[in-house]
Amino acid sequence: MADRFFRRAGSCEIVKKLAAKAVFERGLIDEGDRILIAVSGGKDSTTLAWVLSELRPILKKNYELAALHISSDFCSCCKKSALSKNLAGWDIPFTDLFVPVMGRLGEGRKMNCYWCSTQRRTELLTYAVKNGFNKIALGHHLDDIIETFFMNMTAKGELSAMPVILAYRKYPVSLIRPLFYIEEKQIVSAADELGFSRSACTCPWGVNSMRRDMREKINAFTGASPAVKRRILRSLSDGPRDLLEEP
Amino acid sequence: MADRFFRRAGSCEIVKKLAAKAVFERGLIDEGDRILIAVSGGKDSTTLAWVLSELRPILKKNYELAALHISSDFCSCCKKSALSKNLAGWDIPFTDLFVPVMGRLGEGRKMNCYWCSTQRRTELLTYAVKNGFNKIALGHHLDDIIETFFMNMTAKGELSAMPVILAYRKYPVSLIRPLFYIEEKQIVSAADELGFSRSACTCPWGVNSMRRDMREKINAFTGASPAVKRRILRSLSDGPRDLLEEP
Repeated sequence: MADRFFRRAGSCEIVKKLAAKAVFERGLIDEGDRILIAVSGGKDSTTLAWVLSELRPILKKNYELAALHISSDFCSCCKKSALSKNLAGWDIPFTDLFVPVMGRLGEGRKMNCYWCSTQRRTELLTYAVKNGFNKIALGHHLDDIIETFFMNMTAKGELSAMPVILAYRKYPVSLIRPLFYIEEKQIVSAADELGFSRSACTCPWGVNSMRRDMREKINAFTGASPAVKRRILRSLSDGPRDLLEEP
Repeated sequence: MADRFFRRAGSCEIVKKLAAKAVFERGLIDEGDRILIAVSGGKDSTTLAWVLSELRPILKKNYELAALHISSDFCSCCKKSALSKNLAGWDIPFTDLFVPVMGRLGEGRKMNCYWCSTQRRTELLTYAVKNGFNKIALGHHLDDIIETFFMNMTAKGELSAMPVILAYRKYPVSLIRPLFYIEEKQIVSAADELGFSRSACTCPWGVNSMRRDMREKINAFTGASPAVKRRILRSLSDGPRDLLEEP
């Protein structure tokens, strides 16, 4: 995409263009898709819901959108009313599902991010399958993908990233990540333009500090340069093994 | 290799073990090989020459070693006498070849690192082929490989590193990099133990500043942790496309 476009366009326009590019290039949305958007109430997933509704006339495909929020024991602070109002404005039905994550924790076991996210992911999948959705859209962006790549490389010694489309073998459903071309700061800026609240549910166990450390290291490493980040993303698809496709 | 070994062994022993591991794993040296070592007089290539002579009884293969130094117009300060004395002690014949790099520069053209290194690499190849060497050994180490990987990723958007063995298509000769498992600081330490001079020919055009910057960024990124660097190296060979093999 021409640099001139990025200099002149508003953030919402940039987010729309880059999401459309992602959807076209990777075939993320097909005619007749029933897409469940996983929403937390935060800027990423709210922007995802907004852009997927905005893309309807551009993609020229019939697809259905719905949004699912997963609440848990330690999530009572969500701005769910603002979220559901926004979603209603974009004609996206909203469901809030309560999952007692704490209650499921075995006796003597400690809460951890991995276990909690597995519980929530399983509920999301189960809900999608039960309700006939064939795609689940997640709000991961370019910075999330680069962070995952570097975390897998430095912590696991693996060359892998997040696939932008992943068909589950056990379930008749695929994950899609339509925001993979978009930097976090572009999403923040679009969310500001659109007046979304930046505050999401804050987990009392704190943010994932490993990911936060990695984010700071990557910013130092790339000089927070968008051009460098785009080249890193491009390199992930370079050659015979495309790290943005499912392994 | 056991962590205990690394804690207890001397640097020379570590360098020998890791070079042997590299040679065995990647099949870098075969029976009857005639190997030309590219030596600059610096710690890396001097350590390479030393370790290849030390590996003779371990590898249990007959191979011939020789060393070639390429001098140029702006290289008059080399510690060639110390180098040739060391090489003689390891039973490695030494040749010094003068290449008038400056004289070859077209009128009005400026000297640059890429052009100069291409000139020198061509001379190295031509010399090897003319004199019946089938392998050329280069002193690139683990830090060089990681730097190249990150430079290719961030500057070119390419997922590629340095191959540890590369067969030229146009010439009957292969490049090998037996030090790829060894960190620079391990080489420095071994060179100190062996009493090699650390000073190499200093290029008046200065060190490659892009590489130096990348080195600093990688040190910040990895916390200069050997374990992290080893996981990065491992990731390069992870999966169907091995970035340490030729593309």
